[in-house]
Amino acid sequence: MNGAESLVRSLLASGVTTCFANPGTSEMHFVAALDRVPGVRCVLGLFEGVVTGAADGYWRMADKPAATLLHLGPGLANGVANLHNARKANSGIVNVIGEHATYHLQHDAPLTSDIAGIARPVSHWIGRAETAGDVARLGAEAVAAAMTGAGQIASLILPADTAWTEPAEPAAPIAAPARRKADAAAIEAAATALKAAGGHGMLMLGGIALRRHGLELAARISAATGCKLSNSGYSARMERGGGLPEVGRVPFMVDQALAYLKEVRQLVLVGARKPVAFFAYPGKPSLLLPEGCGIVPVATVDDDLIDALERLADALGAPKAAPAAPSLPKPAVPDGAPAPDKIAAAIAALLPEGAIVVDESITSGRGIFAAAAASAPHDWLNNMGGSIGYSLPVAVGCAIARPERKVVALTGDGSAFYTLQALWTMARENLNVTMVVFANRSYAILRNELANVGAANPGPRAIDMLTLDRPDPDWVALAKGHGVLGRRVEDMGSFAKAFSAALAEHGPQLIELRL
Amino acid sequence: MNGAESLVRSLLASGVTTCFANPGTSEMHFVAALDRVPGVRCVLGLFEGVVTGAADGYWRMADKPAATLLHLGPGLANGVANLHNARKANSGIVNVIGEHATYHLQHDAPLTSDIAGIARPVSHWIGRAETAGDVARLGAEAVAAAMTGAGQIASLILPADTAWTEPAEPAAPIAAPARRKADAAAIEAAATALKAAGGHGMLMLGGIALRRHGLELAARISAATGCKLSNSGYSARMERGGGLPEVGRVPFMVDQALAYLKEVRQLVLVGARKPVAFFAYPGKPSLLLPEGCGIVPVATVDDDLIDALERLADALGAPKAAPAAPSLPKPAVPDGAPAPDKIAAAIAALLPEGAIVVDESITSGRGIFAAAAASAPHDWLNNMGGSIGYSLPVAVGCAIARPERKVVALTGDGSAFYTLQALWTMARENLNVTMVVFANRSYAILRNELANVGAANPGPRAIDMLTLDRPDPDWVALAKGHGVLGRRVEDMGSFAKAFSAALAEHGPQLIELRL
Repeated sequence: MNGAESLVRSLLASGVTTCFANPGTSEMHFVAALDRVPGVRCVLGLFEGVVTGAADGYWRMADKPAATLLHLGPGLANGVANLHNARKANSGIVNVIGEHATYHLQHDAPLTSDIAGIARPVSHWIGRAETAGDVARLGAEAVAAAMTGAGQIASLILPADTAWTEPAEPAAPIAAPARRKADAAAIEAAATALKAAGGHGMLMLGGIALRRHGLELAARISAATGCKLSNSGYSARMERGGGLPEVGRVPFMVDQALAYLKEVRQLVLVGARKPVAFFAYPGKPSLLLPEGCGIVPVATVDDDLIDALERLADALGAPKAAPAAPSLPKPAVPDGAPAPDKIAAAIAALLPEGAIVVDESITSGRGIFAAAAASAPHDWLNNMGGSIGYSLPVAVGCAIARPERKVVALTGDGSAFYTLQALWTMARENLNVTMVVFANRSYAILRNELANVGAANPGPRAIDMLTLDRPDPDWVALAKGHGVLGRRVEDMGSFAKAFSAALAEHGPQLIELRL
Repeated sequence: MNGAESLVRSLLASGVTTCFANPGTSEMHFVAALDRVPGVRCVLGLFEGVVTGAADGYWRMADKPAATLLHLGPGLANGVANLHNARKANSGIVNVIGEHATYHLQHDAPLTSDIAGIARPVSHWIGRAETAGDVARLGAEAVAAAMTGAGQIASLILPADTAWTEPAEPAAPIAAPARRKADAAAIEAAATALKAAGGHGMLMLGGIALRRHGLELAARISAATGCKLSNSGYSARMERGGGLPEVGRVPFMVDQALAYLKEVRQLVLVGARKPVAFFAYPGKPSLLLPEGCGIVPVATVDDDLIDALERLADALGAPKAAPAAPSLPKPAVPDGAPAPDKIAAAIAALLPEGAIVVDESITSGRGIFAAAAASAPHDWLNNMGGSIGYSLPVAVGCAIARPERKVVALTGDGSAFYTLQALWTMARENLNVTMVVFANRSYAILRNELANVGAANPGPRAIDMLTLDRPDPDWVALAKGHGVLGRRVEDMGSFAKAFSAALAEHGPQLIELRL
């Protein structure tokens, strides 16, 4: 077998069963090998940002890495923005990046580029095969790297001749290192701090502490101490609804965030980092905690978070079962003109059990998260890196990882444009995704931000840079162009009908809610 | 004035009058400054690959740099693939990349990234402002860097606080260094080689040697020696048609390229590099020249190419005027089912005078270049870096630079998907672009490449990675979604009618030619 086939067999032996791909000439042997070796599902994306975002979503819902297949440096570069988001979400991904044959590089052909240089800012691990014999071992190392800690980005550069040369042998899987356990002293300090702070304590959670088991442990800790539970503003994946202990989040707007945190005297971090402002604004702080607030870092997102929470609950003598969370009444389905509270109510009311919500609704959807606490059990996924254009690709990966569940992607129209090619992959794979595009024909968030940064009284040319209404994008046509059924609605009654209809059917549908 | 305004004023003083932009929060002060200072045209792109590709096209047709405005590391990353193409095309671009405020970086907020690291693989020059007082001077340096040699990529990182802090002053323009003149010995060696080789000599041209003046000098050199004229396969911009001296090009396919070059005994390089294969293939050479072929490098693309050609013509005692190029008859407009030769004939016959052809037609359009030698005078632009998704953005920039001319973008459907958001900018700015999408619903080139690299007998899963027909993209709907008129045609008669109609009207139109 050649190097390419040894890589496919090694990835498969290491548990990689999905490859999101946008291949070119240099990757043809890898494609041919994927064809010969059964067991790896190949999913084609028409743009690399779709490919890398899908791998991010896949990890979040499958808890194991997918491979990506990218064409040389520029193909990787097109995937970097969503790799940035994946890195900040601690998603494990194995990028396989084709490269010119080793002996061809000296000639600086058009597609020659510094692939490792492009990979470095978003990769925890970079490997480069020099011979066919290297490839399989590097593949196994890449998977182990991807599964290290909470999850990492591994980028394997595969020169074409190392792929096509024989012979090569598959490599055995390599175990990722065990997660670090929290120090006993940190557990003790956290217990002391939370007991002392009472209702002014906050337990800030991240990573898998936001799954059911972690949340139940956190609720027991809260019951023992009165502390509040929060994430730092965003979560890669959080289980919620159906009576799960509810966790707040730090608001995006600095003034609201300061108000949210102003009573906190002791902050205990389990898989989360100190809450900081998304952006800096003149005259406003970067760090959002009140002065004098104690900070007790117990475990980083890479550590064994469940162990840390169990030991913290034990140290506090917490009750063995979390108290039942109050049952929240689902909101009524509203009618009339669209408004933020009505949008939140409609989606919260109709969200089906087991939904995977991929949220990139920005200004239009800020109320949905809070309202959906009353919804049926679901997972809530945020953009952890802030590079917009994450939601449709991530929805692709979620739907591949969990075909039995409904993915609900909520996106602003500005955001959706960055990676709209994801629609075609959804159509091709008949993915179970309902999309809502909030069509305000504007980078609405930037209109606020213009004022927030103190650039007041914008003139027409500035406004023009923030406005998408000349021409009006037609999302029903864009969906049709990609092979997806779209519907346009302008009032909440029609929205509820269209949303329910889309949820009731298998396969991708898009709803353009005109605001 | 603040740092942002000092930058806008410095760019303007240095001759930058166009800014392609996709801004975010960190760039709001720059946007506000663009609003206050008249003279810089702002063009919004909905994706950064559109922004950087447009700046590439602008340079090629305006011979001066545009600025781009990009949002932090991920915004830059989305533009890297087309910056790679621009770098390989020797296009000068001034990237202005927003960054978090200097004091905010320590907090590693979601959008924090290694911006210089992302810029490095595609930038000749990188600057980073540390205070508001730095900004203007760095802006002037960036423009000088962009205008150095044949053209360079300059990337200026602008932390938000350096943009919003006062006071700052504009900086005076900085002159780019003069282009190097070719060595007298190289001119003499080239003259000797071409005289000796006669009909087995080849003068390979690149950069501005492919404009009218250079071509006329090259034709005189050919008249004096019998040498052939060629480019190395691609050109950033080449003037042709209307009786201009015709220049061949090295074919993409290795066997055809070897045949094209096999009689060459002496190769003289003026602004071009040695012809090399686009990709490596097992058992085929990377360097395409026959054994024993002499190579005389006279001038790199960064040098003074017109001076070099003038001196070479003088050294050869070339005739003072080039002989009239043979007048080629325009092909007849064909009818019937689409086929490569008919596509070539139709486009060559109908191409209007002054057309700017942006060619990314890949497999469907390989014959158009040769046929268009008989067309009215036009410019022909190639993808110099090989990263697909270049043509629609470059067409945007060409149309902004030369509004009085018709831009004709020829693209495969696979290629067009990467940066289809360019359509919206064309609609918004009512750009004079006629697009032809060759809809073969396939990465057709890769089907050939699979065989070329020796990965024969592909199975259904490999073929699936190269096929775009499930679902069929609907380019008329995609155009409509972006606010552009589209037409679908399936035979050559209808194509000629639709192409003529689109050419006759100002503004963007798209023709989907179903193959």
